[in-house]
Amino acid sequence: MSNHLPSWNDGKTKESILKYLDLVTDPNQATFVPIEDRIAVFDNDGTLWCEKPMYIQLDYILRQLAGQAQSNPELRTRQPWQAAWKKDFAWLGSAITKHYQGDDSDLKVLLGGVLALANDQPVERIEAAAKKFVENERHPELALSYQDCVYKPMFELLRFLEANDFTNYIVSGGGRDFMRGFAQDLYSIPRERVIGSTVAYRFVESENGADILQKAELDVIDDGPGKPIQIWHVIGRRPILAAGNSNGDIEMLKFTQSRGEPYLNLLLLHDDTEREYAYQKGAEKALNLAAERDWQVISMKDDWNIIF
Amino acid sequence: MSNHLPSWNDGKTKESILKYLDLVTDPNQATFVPIEDRIAVFDNDGTLWCEKPMYIQLDYILRQLAGQAQSNPELRTRQPWQAAWKKDFAWLGSAITKHYQGDDSDLKVLLGGVLALANDQPVERIEAAAKKFVENERHPELALSYQDCVYKPMFELLRFLEANDFTNYIVSGGGRDFMRGFAQDLYSIPRERVIGSTVAYRFVESENGADILQKAELDVIDDGPGKPIQIWHVIGRRPILAAGNSNGDIEMLKFTQSRGEPYLNLLLLHDDTEREYAYQKGAEKALNLAAERDWQVISMKDDWNIIF
Repeated sequence: MSNHLPSWNDGKTKESILKYLDLVTDPNQATFVPIEDRIAVFDNDGTLWCEKPMYIQLDYILRQLAGQAQSNPELRTRQPWQAAWKKDFAWLGSAITKHYQGDDSDLKVLLGGVLALANDQPVERIEAAAKKFVENERHPELALSYQDCVYKPMFELLRFLEANDFTNYIVSGGGRDFMRGFAQDLYSIPRERVIGSTVAYRFVESENGADILQKAELDVIDDGPGKPIQIWHVIGRRPILAAGNSNGDIEMLKFTQSRGEPYLNLLLLHDDTEREYAYQKGAEKALNLAAERDWQVISMKDDWNIIF
Repeated sequence: MSNHLPSWNDGKTKESILKYLDLVTDPNQATFVPIEDRIAVFDNDGTLWCEKPMYIQLDYILRQLAGQAQSNPELRTRQPWQAAWKKDFAWLGSAITKHYQGDDSDLKVLLGGVLALANDQPVERIEAAAKKFVENERHPELALSYQDCVYKPMFELLRFLEANDFTNYIVSGGGRDFMRGFAQDLYSIPRERVIGSTVAYRFVESENGADILQKAELDVIDDGPGKPIQIWHVIGRRPILAAGNSNGDIEMLKFTQSRGEPYLNLLLLHDDTEREYAYQKGAEKALNLAAERDWQVISMKDDWNIIF
């Protein structure tokens, strides 16, 4: 079986995955799980692809905001347009970090700008823009296009789970409509299995048809307790495998564990300064819980022989 | 192919279904639709199973409300407990009819009682109660248990679509968690393909695990324009086949038509006083639109040789 995960080094992590799949798929064991319940949920940013120095979707958003500040100088002294215009990534990065530490003030300012961008956008247009963006734009530090920022070992894990009759879902704090633009191409995960944050919609009729437009109004924040809640709304089953990398994934991991054995919780530790990044900010609680509850921590440095 | 729909009489309706499936599945025709886009959406009440003299879920709710009035006499003079306690089905029926005619006042009173029932209910408990209810309780007028109130011709259509690699979804104004309790057993539609109205959830942790509880707070009304909106939230694709029976299905049918040819919109006309019911209240606009837009009307009386 191990030749299905060629990018994973031999060791405890890979062993725990292989052992778990054996427990779940062997009809002669009490731990066997019927195919319809083999639900695996994956966080996206920092779990399936790179999230540093900033979320890839944030780069997309900032370019849009900067474009607005370009045409409207008054916006250049207002956040979040100011940060976008001046490329003040420190302000932006700290908005996210503060969020995971319990302070949402800057995130709300940022969201105000994001929501204004959404107003009256047809859902299909957002997806097309997202697809074009990840295909054409490049990571600011790694010598990669965004679409190549997918972690190869995680891509292999998705395929290996599929080969074992799992159904994989993305469950991310990122924008669902944005992710739907590339989830099939980058992860082979179809659009109906992409769960994420979303604005509200409105249904509009025109002479030639009918469309769904985004509204400048937050509907779902798929983060923290929002993750198990969205999992139930969309899937209606408790996952038996979950993978994440930050405090925003804790409730999803707990919900997965709550189903009882056999379950597998994976927490990706970014500890590779040479090939990617090393950071634990915003993941402190999750790492503590992983140690307490025996969730499997993946070390990028030690467990992966290739990253991208 | 026609032996797949034995409960359907030969005629224009059955022909239009067979012809449509041929258009969609024949790889040599320009109308061929790839499997991943073969999405079919079905309203539930009045489309897949009987909705008269009242919604089956309403019977379930009324028994719960009457139970509360039984133990708390003060509730017996307050709507909706009064109607539930006195079995005043006229008040209840008119609340629904008024809704489809544009007046939501009584429906809101009814919803108040329904929402109070939801408070702090674990989602799994609702499902178990729904399953038990449809298995054990009987239709008040037809000589059938509720689980046998499924329209046999529609059940055959679901199976025939599956055989043609369609993915079937329920898209109903009814409660999603209620429907998930029996959708697999009655329709062979898995829980993740049940779209419906829902209350909000909260995530709670206990010593032994983690659960999703219903809140006494409406989240989604999956009716009218809410149907295409929920279709996009959950599926993210425009259906190519839709079936409904009331004004609440109009936007779903329009959204399906908006994809362009080939599409098939089916509108079930209740015109069989002998074997089921004959009524058009709450379906007037939909029937007018069906005539205007050439949607296929299904006559229960003429098109079905058996109903249940």
